[in-house]
Amino acid sequence: MKTRSIFGVPNSTITTQSVYSKGGFNYDHLIEQFGATKLQPDLIQKIQKILDDKGKNISMHPFLKRGLFVSHRDLDLIVNEYENGEPFYLYTGRGPSGGLHLGHLMPFTITRFLQQAFDVPVVIQLTDDEKFLHRDLDLDEIRVLLRENCKDIIACGFDLEKTFIFSNFDYMGTLYPNVVKIQKLITNNQVRGIFGVTPSSNIGQTSFPAIQAAPSFFSSFPEVLSRAPGLARCLIPCGLDQAPYFRMTRDIEPRLNSHNKKEMFLKPAILHGTFLPSLESIEEKMSASKPDSAIFLTDTPAQVKKKVARASSGGRADKKEHVRLGADLTVDVPFHFCKYFLEDDQELEQIRHEYGTGAMMSSQIKQRTCKLIDTLLTEHQARRALVTDELVDQFLKVRPLSFGPNKQ
Amino acid sequence: MKTRSIFGVPNSTITTQSVYSKGGFNYDHLIEQFGATKLQPDLIQKIQKILDDKGKNISMHPFLKRGLFVSHRDLDLIVNEYENGEPFYLYTGRGPSGGLHLGHLMPFTITRFLQQAFDVPVVIQLTDDEKFLHRDLDLDEIRVLLRENCKDIIACGFDLEKTFIFSNFDYMGTLYPNVVKIQKLITNNQVRGIFGVTPSSNIGQTSFPAIQAAPSFFSSFPEVLSRAPGLARCLIPCGLDQAPYFRMTRDIEPRLNSHNKKEMFLKPAILHGTFLPSLESIEEKMSASKPDSAIFLTDTPAQVKKKVARASSGGRADKKEHVRLGADLTVDVPFHFCKYFLEDDQELEQIRHEYGTGAMMSSQIKQRTCKLIDTLLTEHQARRALVTDELVDQFLKVRPLSFGPNKQ
Repeated sequence: MKTRSIFGVPNSTITTQSVYSKGGFNYDHLIEQFGATKLQPDLIQKIQKILDDKGKNISMHPFLKRGLFVSHRDLDLIVNEYENGEPFYLYTGRGPSGGLHLGHLMPFTITRFLQQAFDVPVVIQLTDDEKFLHRDLDLDEIRVLLRENCKDIIACGFDLEKTFIFSNFDYMGTLYPNVVKIQKLITNNQVRGIFGVTPSSNIGQTSFPAIQAAPSFFSSFPEVLSRAPGLARCLIPCGLDQAPYFRMTRDIEPRLNSHNKKEMFLKPAILHGTFLPSLESIEEKMSASKPDSAIFLTDTPAQVKKKVARASSGGRADKKEHVRLGADLTVDVPFHFCKYFLEDDQELEQIRHEYGTGAMMSSQIKQRTCKLIDTLLTEHQARRALVTDELVDQFLKVRPLSFGPNKQ
Repeated sequence: MKTRSIFGVPNSTITTQSVYSKGGFNYDHLIEQFGATKLQPDLIQKIQKILDDKGKNISMHPFLKRGLFVSHRDLDLIVNEYENGEPFYLYTGRGPSGGLHLGHLMPFTITRFLQQAFDVPVVIQLTDDEKFLHRDLDLDEIRVLLRENCKDIIACGFDLEKTFIFSNFDYMGTLYPNVVKIQKLITNNQVRGIFGVTPSSNIGQTSFPAIQAAPSFFSSFPEVLSRAPGLARCLIPCGLDQAPYFRMTRDIEPRLNSHNKKEMFLKPAILHGTFLPSLESIEEKMSASKPDSAIFLTDTPAQVKKKVARASSGGRADKKEHVRLGADLTVDVPFHFCKYFLEDDQELEQIRHEYGTGAMMSSQIKQRTCKLIDTLLTEHQARRALVTDELVDQFLKVRPLSFGPNKQ
């Protein structure tokens, strides 16, 4: 499929298929172009206060307090509704394919955090149909990838009582009425404009956006969300590259309501993640299709060490220069990784200061980053090893999810 | 949706949406343009011989012996395979909408005949999704139409043990993998060329042809056709206006096999029906969207009388002229109706002779046609009155159909 810039940002290619921006991503510019709302500290503080008031001993996730989930649509509305006792649910997803890398973890990590913070159900769409339409793989091969991907997703710590993971092939019987209602409201011209679908694209690729949109609406889950105390709004954490799907979804909500008068559709809220940079450059997002750019969840410490050693650095040409100028943090990939994955705010600030002033050397921050990633991967791999096929089946089973705190 | 001639026949509009041909339909020309095979008497005789050899006391259906189902693709292959003991199944369908007219009965009538003749299962697709995508109706309204249409279809005499009627909304869970396999092999350009889908068509209309194609393949019915003694080929009786769907389906069969190596797809065979003419003109097919052109299955004898009285006639300007020239049978709608619905060959020949030579008057053939239609409708309405909601549910239920003669 031909890609097409979804933001109209100069020197950038940011589409649902490819992400690149010369000089690194200017998120303020992206948010403005995209008409989203920057996630501001006061909303983060409000969320923290809700958690504190609930007596939850949870501190704000670094992805939120550091602006790594950078913008939103109607997150403030969801939070207000939540305060008024109205239910919501979380929706995220993935196209099943070969191994996940660190960038893939971002939506799952934040979704897991929000599930724990708000005690809400999560639905996770695995778009096996889309992968089949785009790749030269058969259904059995995609099924194997899907189950392997499931294990990584479950290893992120989702609550079985509150999480439904589904394959589109398996769940289409239930999803289909809403898919068709959405398809009816989107023209070929629109998917061409938004997603770069062309006359030579296949017709499955053309109609697919409706399938990714459908889980944004409560009525797509008659059994799974049957325990909701009322109509629940959807909150969708996703990478900015997936945002066009959900902008389209929000745009059609008024017509969904006017065309289907017996039902009520609530406009979904969205939370947009930034792009974890490639090892090679902060101008690109980490991508599985460029293996050298990515740290996979299965990488060994030796592989991590080798990859991080070659990572694009903001260190200066020689030691003297480095001590004089300090590192250029804006282009330093290891420092970016610390921002994403080092939970200790104090240590992060210390690194920012020492490395930025030249007191810390490039080799040192790389060493710290390796250790950080090794810990993250070791822990993930240990949790993943505990995920049995039976547990995968349980997460994939259609069943009512619970709302509110689990019974102790 | 913009319509587009599917045959390239001059002065004709024959599309999946509209059917018209100046001077009446030249089927030889249509068949040639369309690359189908004319249904020849030797194949009809062969089918009759099979029925006789089976000891079935069934004589050939008028639709077949009179060329009203006029052409085919691979019907000879199906018949040969049947002789060799290989199973097949029948597939036809309908878009649920308001009342059926006489023209709508044609595919069901011939499918019912073939079911009885060959003791084979029938699957009937009700394209409620397509209706929803094209019309301003909600799902509940379409559901009501679907169940009402089911009653008319069942009243055609289908064998419950061998017939599965399905709503696409209900059955998509099972149909979906084959739908996606087909969608992958068809481009937007192709559906534009074949069906006249345009950039401003909705994306559901664009991908729909794959949904009509999918039941042409055995693996779309894992449970329903589970009792087949082997892989069964599909035979599709349909009007010529629906033929583009199945030409497309046949065209992609080789690639379906090469792209999905673990499965086997058999090219479906097709049997093409002619167009029952409108009451107003033999240049148009009967159409529910022009109520004066159509005799509906709910019409009373008084309504039939009024409509037939106004039907386009081949009778001459006055009695003297009529006796001198005889009627012009080629443009006479009542005579066409006799060809379609008068089972008695001898009486039909008598009418052809007497009316064609001017011995029978226009008013007389109209009277005979009224009686013929009244009988047909009275019998249909009586059978339909016996169709309960429970019986509709039974036909709609997913269950294994039986192959071969019913147990006595």
